[in-house]
Amino acid sequence: MDSVVLLSGGTGGAKLARGLADVCDDLTVVANTADDVDVYGVHVSPDPDLVTYWLADAIDERGWGLEGDTWQVMEALAAAGQQHWFRLGDRDLAMCLIRTERLRAGESLTQAHAAVVDAMDVEARVLPMSDHPVETWVGARGRTVPFQEFMIAQGGEGPVDAVELRGLERAAPSDAVLQAIALADAIVIGPSNPVISIGPILALPGLSESLRAGPAPVVAVSPFVGGRALKGPTEPFCEQAGIELSAAGIARAYRDVIDGIVADEPSGAAAELVTDTLMHTPDDRARLAREVLDFAASVGATR
Amino acid sequence: MDSVVLLSGGTGGAKLARGLADVCDDLTVVANTADDVDVYGVHVSPDPDLVTYWLADAIDERGWGLEGDTWQVMEALAAAGQQHWFRLGDRDLAMCLIRTERLRAGESLTQAHAAVVDAMDVEARVLPMSDHPVETWVGARGRTVPFQEFMIAQGGEGPVDAVELRGLERAAPSDAVLQAIALADAIVIGPSNPVISIGPILALPGLSESLRAGPAPVVAVSPFVGGRALKGPTEPFCEQAGIELSAAGIARAYRDVIDGIVADEPSGAAAELVTDTLMHTPDDRARLAREVLDFAASVGATR
Repeated sequence: MDSVVLLSGGTGGAKLARGLADVCDDLTVVANTADDVDVYGVHVSPDPDLVTYWLADAIDERGWGLEGDTWQVMEALAAAGQQHWFRLGDRDLAMCLIRTERLRAGESLTQAHAAVVDAMDVEARVLPMSDHPVETWVGARGRTVPFQEFMIAQGGEGPVDAVELRGLERAAPSDAVLQAIALADAIVIGPSNPVISIGPILALPGLSESLRAGPAPVVAVSPFVGGRALKGPTEPFCEQAGIELSAAGIARAYRDVIDGIVADEPSGAAAELVTDTLMHTPDDRARLAREVLDFAASVGATR
Repeated sequence: MDSVVLLSGGTGGAKLARGLADVCDDLTVVANTADDVDVYGVHVSPDPDLVTYWLADAIDERGWGLEGDTWQVMEALAAAGQQHWFRLGDRDLAMCLIRTERLRAGESLTQAHAAVVDAMDVEARVLPMSDHPVETWVGARGRTVPFQEFMIAQGGEGPVDAVELRGLERAAPSDAVLQAIALADAIVIGPSNPVISIGPILALPGLSESLRAGPAPVVAVSPFVGGRALKGPTEPFCEQAGIELSAAGIARAYRDVIDGIVADEPSGAAAELVTDTLMHTPDDRARLAREVLDFAASVGATR
């Protein structure tokens, strides 16, 4: 499989990205930026960074940030009595500075994140979904707050009453994203949160149309294992959005854009691959990536 | 002496600020911002920071930055192959983040630096000279470059052919600066570089007029000791500006705004105090500060 495009949020999608990097020649990850946040004066792109750190084999075992990172700047902010609820290790912060300096110089988010990818010596492309700001706001317990505040200050605890994607109507996929989709041999929707990670990507004006218009088969990997989300606040968001925590639920959620689904249980979809979707080890990730691409090829052949 | 205003650049002025904090009730330092620089996406104010770190008893013995600081972020930038010619320790960077976050939120530089002063637990006010950007550019060896580039990339080596203060005509002293000057009992021009540290402050439209219009005596402390500048690139700048490296040279350079001068040698000025101006120890700094204020009071009485 020559050119693969993966739509991804954080952990699940990022792990699959790492597997795909082992088994395909040309990987482009389109990462959600609706969780981006400006904090301490720097621009943080949590999902593009998580994908990049996974691809660089540099992710910390805690699941975010860089392995072996230090915390001098956060400790200095804490000692100075400043808010420091958004934890950034020193090396993680250095990557944000690389991005921020370029943004301040007038470069696009796509260009600025490419500098981070380059700094981390990653060969794959990691494209922010858009150069325009889109912000996920979450309504819960009577308040509507930015996503990071919901996650960190409120612990990501549901129930979730509402999700707003602010700025979406003025946003567009970047040219780099549309070009990668048009030239792809396969499109994979990663096992990320369908509401707040994949949702913003698919909701970008023109993005879903570009998936349907392109020649490549589109397959999704379910984020659910045994009917549960593995990580993060996926469940309360799916409950609010009316997405059942099952392969069938995911197949329905993506029905307008996918040609097939990969999950650990039958989905009822016409084209499906039932396989072990856990990705604990490098071998797991490469095996799943290979199976997903083989499945996409088979779906593409009958499309 | 109740209210003292000190005009200051980096080291010399900052040391006198520390002495003045010991001997006066209400100290306001007006610090040069024409050396400010945006680097790594953050706003660095070298002179206001140096003054603040001296006032906090936190200056590193190397003469800049914070004592005992670490270098994790710079090392990460270096490891990532990024430019890192402007060295910022991790805690120093944290102070810049505090400032930058506020600037991005729309606060003035005055407000943003006040947060740094507060974070460092400093009681005195440290006011950026202006909320408008003014940039010192230096012409040397056929090129005109920003001051920090001249200092760091070119080692601050003269001869200097030209100094430009870009943005000056559109800048103004901040309201806080003008108010402090109007309410001061004494104004002290610190022993800083008269061309690139004190020069930009005095050149702000309306600043010199406010010194002359106010009730307070204005006295300058010469930056020269034994006819030499103690530190930094003062000498080539004075040579380019035609300022003799002596008390008399300083008295002439400031003749339009000062009522008296403090130096280690006679200056020929009508009102002068000849004393030891070295400030190696806390006692030196407090003693000189006391003498300067007593001298200012005597000059004020006969004004």
